Parts: sequence; structure tokens; C-alpha cells
Amino acid sequence: MKLGRMNHVGYAVPSMADAVAHWRDVMGATSVSDEIILEEQGLKVVFVDTPTDSGMNGTQIELIEELTPGQTALTGFLAKNPLGGQHHVCFEVPDIDAARAEFERLGKRILGPTRIVAHGTPIFFVHPKDMQGMLTEIMESPKAAH
Amino acid sequence: MKLGRMNHVGYAVPSMADAVAHWRDVMGATSVSDEIILEEQGLKVVFVDTPTDSGMNGTQIELIEELTPGQTALTGFLAKNPLGGQHHVCFEVPDIDAARAEFERLGKRILGPTRIVAHGTPIFFVHPKDMQGMLTEIMESPKAAH
Repeated sequence: MKLGRMNHVGYAVPSMADAVAHWRDVMGATSVSDEIILEEQGLKVVFVDTPTDSGMNGTQIELIEELTPGQTALTGFLAKNPLGGQHHVCFEVPDIDAARAEFERLGKRILGPTRIVAHGTPIFFVHPKDMQGMLTEIMESPKAAH
Repeated sequence: MKLGRMNHVGYAVPSMADAVAHWRDVMGATSVSDEIILEEQGLKVVFVDTPTDSGMNGTQIELIEELTPGQTALTGFLAKNPLGGQHHVCFEVPDIDAARAEFERLGKRILGPTRIVAHGTPIFFVHPKDMQGMLTEIMESPKAAH
């Protein structure tokens, strides 16, 4: 693939209220999204914007909390990391189907179908064991950004 | 503090050669630094640039390998994560001393003195247990970026 923007870094959090307070009050974030409910995944997410030198879109922090504790894609991670922590990283590509085909050709294990979740643009995840220990999300660049 | 740029995300890697090959050949990075030797820390680092919509400086990936295995700040992390993985995240601030004083006032555990390492600008680290599970590096914005 051709490396695109680091769209966001995902952090699992045991408490969204505590996490939002941390980012606002300790880290000084001034742009924090409303809560987004992902019913199908049993998750709630909040995006924190980070500034850039250009003034354009910086890499976001995605805070992720379980709505249904013990039954989500975060459960194993939170069991190992009860305080929360860095869960995945997401990079943009211009063409999601081309990127998926290339990861498949390289023998990388892709986790589930290409799907649209919180950003309104198609994504897929690649297994951390094939990605230097990093759960990696690949996202087609959101159209609004261009 | 006032949240600044996400300067970089740090990844511990068991093999720098494999990690650089991954970022070049799988992820498609085109801007990869030379190796930087940090003798005092017993570490070797390489920076991978990521693109942005603006064309200006994106959040970097910092790949970190032990020069002296078993005797560095990465040793515990690599023991728990033998494939490597996300080790820390770094945010910029305009004034490192003001930021340090504020973290101290908040009772956050700061790890060691403020010091200059790979970026040529002062940094300090804050304990993950006080930072939502994230080892957090605070860096004074490099002067060259402004």
C-alpha cells in the first residue's frame, strides 16, 4: 500500500467519563466530539482532535469504551490492560479495495469484512501478529477531507 | 497543559531491520530516517514520516530497538510484548518547564529529569498509571518547526 495519513490512534478506556476528563483537564484538549454509540459493536467512542502546525486536521485520539462489558472486541485488551491504553492505530489509503487485496496478497490476516463504522468510510483491521504487534486499521480517506 | 501536536507514536521493535522493512514494504512509507544511536539509553531509533492533507509535518512513527537487550527502558515492555507494539505517545507543548510544573501540581508521577534525547528538544515522560494507561512523553515544540 501507499502510506496515507495517520487518521487516529485508538485508546481503550475503562471509563469514558474519566477519559474525557483526562483529555480535557490534564491534556488540555479543546475539541472533543459528542459520544457516538456503535450499537452493533457494543461500543461507545469519542474523538479528541489534536492541533497541527498547519491548522489542518491532526491525528485524532479515539477513546473507546465498552457499552456491554465483557462482550466486545475490547474485552480481551481491557482484561490485560485494566487501566486502558493504546489499542490500535489507523492509517488512510485512497482505495480500500486495492489495499485489502494487497494485504491479502502479502498473506496478512484481515479481521472480518470491510465495513463502515464510526467514520462513515470503509475500514478493515489487520491482525497485530502480522503487523509488528500493532492492531492496524486501514481506512479509505474520508471524502470530506479532500 | 495546552494540548499541542501529536509529535510521534513510539513503537518498540524486536528487530529494527524487520520493522523498517515492514514500514517500507508493507505500509508503503517513503520517508524513513537513518538510524539514530542513543548510547546513553542503550537504544537505536528510526523515524518514519507519515503524510498529511496539508503537506506539512505529520505525526511520526518512532521505531525503537534495544542496543543492549535486557538492560533498557524497553526491556519490560518487550518481555510482555515479544512482537513489539505501541510503547508511548508524545505530545508537544510550547514550554516544557511550565508543563512539568503543571503535571507536578496535578500529582502525576514524572519519570526522571527533563532531558534532551533524539529530537534535540527537551522532553519528559509521565507514568502510564497516572495517564489512562499510556506512557506519555511531553516535548517542547522543536524550534525548527516554527
